[in-house]
Amino acid sequence: MSFGEIFLWELMGTATLTLLGCGVVANVQLRKSLGYDGGWLLVAFGWGFAVFAGASVAAPTDAHINPAVTLGLAVNGQTPWEQVPVYIVAQVIGGAIGAVLCWAAYKLQFDTHDDPGSTRGIFCTGPTVPNAPWNLITEIIGTFVLVLWIILSPQAGPGDSPGVPEFGNAALGYAAVAFIVVSIGASLGGPTGYAINPARDLGPRIVYAVLPIRGKGSAEWGYSWIPIAGPAIGGILAGALALALPAT
Amino acid sequence: MSFGEIFLWELMGTATLTLLGCGVVANVQLRKSLGYDGGWLLVAFGWGFAVFAGASVAAPTDAHINPAVTLGLAVNGQTPWEQVPVYIVAQVIGGAIGAVLCWAAYKLQFDTHDDPGSTRGIFCTGPTVPNAPWNLITEIIGTFVLVLWIILSPQAGPGDSPGVPEFGNAALGYAAVAFIVVSIGASLGGPTGYAINPARDLGPRIVYAVLPIRGKGSAEWGYSWIPIAGPAIGGILAGALALALPAT
Amino acid sequence: MSFGEIFLWELMGTATLTLLGCGVVANVQLRKSLGYDGGWLLVAFGWGFAVFAGASVAAPTDAHINPAVTLGLAVNGQTPWEQVPVYIVAQVIGGAIGAVLCWAAYKLQFDTHDDPGSTRGIFCTGPTVPNAPWNLITEIIGTFVLVLWIILSPQAGPGDSPGVPEFGNAALGYAAVAFIVVSIGASLGGPTGYAINPARDLGPRIVYAVLPIRGKGSAEWGYSWIPIAGPAIGGILAGALALALPAT
Amino acid sequence: MSFGEIFLWELMGTATLTLLGCGVVANVQLRKSLGYDGGWLLVAFGWGFAVFAGASVAAPTDAHINPAVTLGLAVNGQTPWEQVPVYIVAQVIGGAIGAVLCWAAYKLQFDTHDDPGSTRGIFCTGPTVPNAPWNLITEIIGTFVLVLWIILSPQAGPGDSPGVPEFGNAALGYAAVAFIVVSIGASLGGPTGYAINPARDLGPRIVYAVLPIRGKGSAEWGYSWIPIAGPAIGGILAGALALALPAT
Repeated sequence: MSFGEIFLWELMGTATLTLLGCGVVANVQLRKSLGYDGGWLLVAFGWGFAVFAGASVAAPTDAHINPAVTLGLAVNGQTPWEQVPVYIVAQVIGGAIGAVLCWAAYKLQFDTHDDPGSTRGIFCTGPTVPNAPWNLITEIIGTFVLVLWIILSPQAGPGDSPGVPEFGNAALGYAAVAFIVVSIGASLGGPTGYAINPARDLGPRIVYAVLPIRGKGSAEWGYSWIPIAGPAIGGILAGALALALPAT
Repeated sequence: MSFGEIFLWELMGTATLTLLGCGVVANVQLRKSLGYDGGWLLVAFGWGFAVFAGASVAAPTDAHINPAVTLGLAVNGQTPWEQVPVYIVAQVIGGAIGAVLCWAAYKLQFDTHDDPGSTRGIFCTGPTVPNAPWNLITEIIGTFVLVLWIILSPQAGPGDSPGVPEFGNAALGYAAVAFIVVSIGASLGGPTGYAINPARDLGPRIVYAVLPIRGKGSAEWGYSWIPIAGPAIGGILAGALALALPAT
Repeated sequence: MSFGEIFLWELMGTATLTLLGCGVVANVQLRKSLGYDGGWLLVAFGWGFAVFAGASVAAPTDAHINPAVTLGLAVNGQTPWEQVPVYIVAQVIGGAIGAVLCWAAYKLQFDTHDDPGSTRGIFCTGPTVPNAPWNLITEIIGTFVLVLWIILSPQAGPGDSPGVPEFGNAALGYAAVAFIVVSIGASLGGPTGYAINPARDLGPRIVYAVLPIRGKGSAEWGYSWIPIAGPAIGGILAGALALALPAT
Repeated sequence: MSFGEIFLWELMGTATLTLLGCGVVANVQLRKSLGYDGGWLLVAFGWGFAVFAGASVAAPTDAHINPAVTLGLAVNGQTPWEQVPVYIVAQVIGGAIGAVLCWAAYKLQFDTHDDPGSTRGIFCTGPTVPNAPWNLITEIIGTFVLVLWIILSPQAGPGDSPGVPEFGNAALGYAAVAFIVVSIGASLGGPTGYAINPARDLGPRIVYAVLPIRGKGSAEWGYSWIPIAGPAIGGILAGALALALPAT
């Protein structure tokens, strides 16, 4: 797989992820959306299936679409280190592109929302109780679960097993990771909004800071390092632990 | 596959789609339904699993049940252009038949609903903030995600791989596309009600205009071109982009 | 498969179905249940996954657990007519046993419910707007979708393909029918509570009439023929239509 | 499989289970969580997908992560009795570790919750109507369904079939048991909060008693034997019944 192909597929996959992921939060938060006030289970399924969609698109590059996954797999020896920067840059740019598309899809709802200062949460995460060390721990735990599960489970995507006949449910290849992301959202998303993915947070945060969103507030750059550092640490810890586990 | 068989299976599949899809909206909107006020996640799962049911029925014709999918696959070279009109006509007629059956299933609830002018949304889509260009963009984006995912994922249905042993989960063949449709509904359905399928909107809109539904209002024909043009454009763009992507 | 084995597995499968299915309604309706007022999507998933559980248990007999399915498959030539009475008797008895177990699990909640006359809906179905012909049509349509889907989809259960290696997801064999039942509940359950299965309604209705449930009301025998006749007609129509469809 | 490996994988799997399972209840119950008041379906999916995650992690040891499952399989002859104590000790310790991690993830939400005496339900189960015999019966019934389903369904995990090609959906191996647990939660969780797993209840209950949780109340040790005895009895009954069933 060439650097260019890694860049292309990861960018497209992560753009799909944040288009749909930011989209579900827009649907729930913007007053003139049909899904307004739709509840946390809607958000959890929305982000989980956004991962399903994005991972399916990025199947040719093993569907990282998350720098924490890339780092964890690199520590675990599954991704060459020289590919890591390509993955991560593509993911952050893709994450930004998806957020722009989400904003376009909900342009009229942003323009008519009656509390425009509150829309940052559509793009990036934030804590319900700000406290850097504990917020970091929450993000580390959530990402650790995600990346450890990815390393321990059979993750071959549809394109990885050339000799396997492809019938219907090969398309379900990434449903399992979607269920894990629904689970992490349902169970560990309460305190910080579960970034568990630096690109999912940083890309859309840049977009929020740059786009002419009506009445927008601060991008909260002071918090932005936590959804980067927490997931990175969680992914690296999971990759390192997996190295120490016995073969099965 | 003969034109007659394409017509038959696509008509039956699309009728199943709109029977169940319009049905969930009826259940949520009509006051005397047990699912009244059931929330957006119920709508999103309802339409997603309606696609699962309809696509399973239309498996012999590769389960388009959507003119935007047919157009995208034709542009991508997977569906012969001479079949395209047969697919689309069958889908629109099927979409209408399903809406008639939905009306029959909910006849008593229509007759006792206390706000009969509001029932158009059970049949066809409409924007929460009317604005033709932005409404069109929302429909283009949603359909683009759907059709690109269909083209990029392994979509062989249960009947497509004659040598593959059929065991239990072959029946799950179209669960993946159902999850994508749940995702698009959860994430991109807020502004316009996600037609993402011209036949799903036009067929039931004709039925709404024609049937003697108690106290019905306007069929809003002025808006009706957007859920046709938007999905068509989105599907064609996805088919064209897929042509430009490198092989995997 | 001997008559005795058919009887055993269908009884156990249908008992599992109504234990879990009636259970979710008890959870939602009884004031001292943790799931009280949990909403229609909870009911739809509860019954859908109840079918998943029950069908898995009854896999050795192809998981009918529903007289409408048995009749449809008999008309379609897939089930010998001499087995039909065995299937149906086992299903009704199993349906009753599951309802007894549900009552035992929720005994304290029944005893402390503040509106004991309203608990019939936990056991059996009823219309929101009583009208025999239209109620019948609703039940016919819902069951027709179910049985047609079963006949058209590849339904081999885990035990049916001896040469197929059994790995993890063989256990998902009946997830597809669960999704269809979630769909029918979400979309067509609003008017009559979607019996779509005579044994699911008749068995628990008998239990409701017989058991010493605190403060119980009428078993509404006047309505009871509709959730028998409607599903039976819908299943037979689906079986007959499937005979007329071209081979795929 | 050595005793040490059994201990390791069961501990990790059960820790994953209670981290995510207790997590969803924390998310729903703690006022400063984003999922506050998220409803019973969120809880049911949260615990169900927690089982999916935990079982995937414990796949090398056939994913018991529940003493009731271990006992049922031992009675059924599938797990050697000398392994049983290793499984159970690992599960209880793992259950406790997961609860500690859940508390860490929600530390700030515990510290700011306005009704701190009510947080026991995040860790362990309790009845809505206390009554030992009937509470026991509810737990027996729920666990019986779980363990019987596990014994009757093909449960081979991803690692159990060396000759089977691993493609995408092998990762879905434990989705089926997740659906069953969602079902039991939706349908039988109302009266007692469905422990259906002694380790899931005892491990976190010890943690609740020991950890310095702000304003905590009693650990209700008087009730604690029911979510141990009920699931144990239910699992053993299921294992014994399965021995008596005819081969299929």
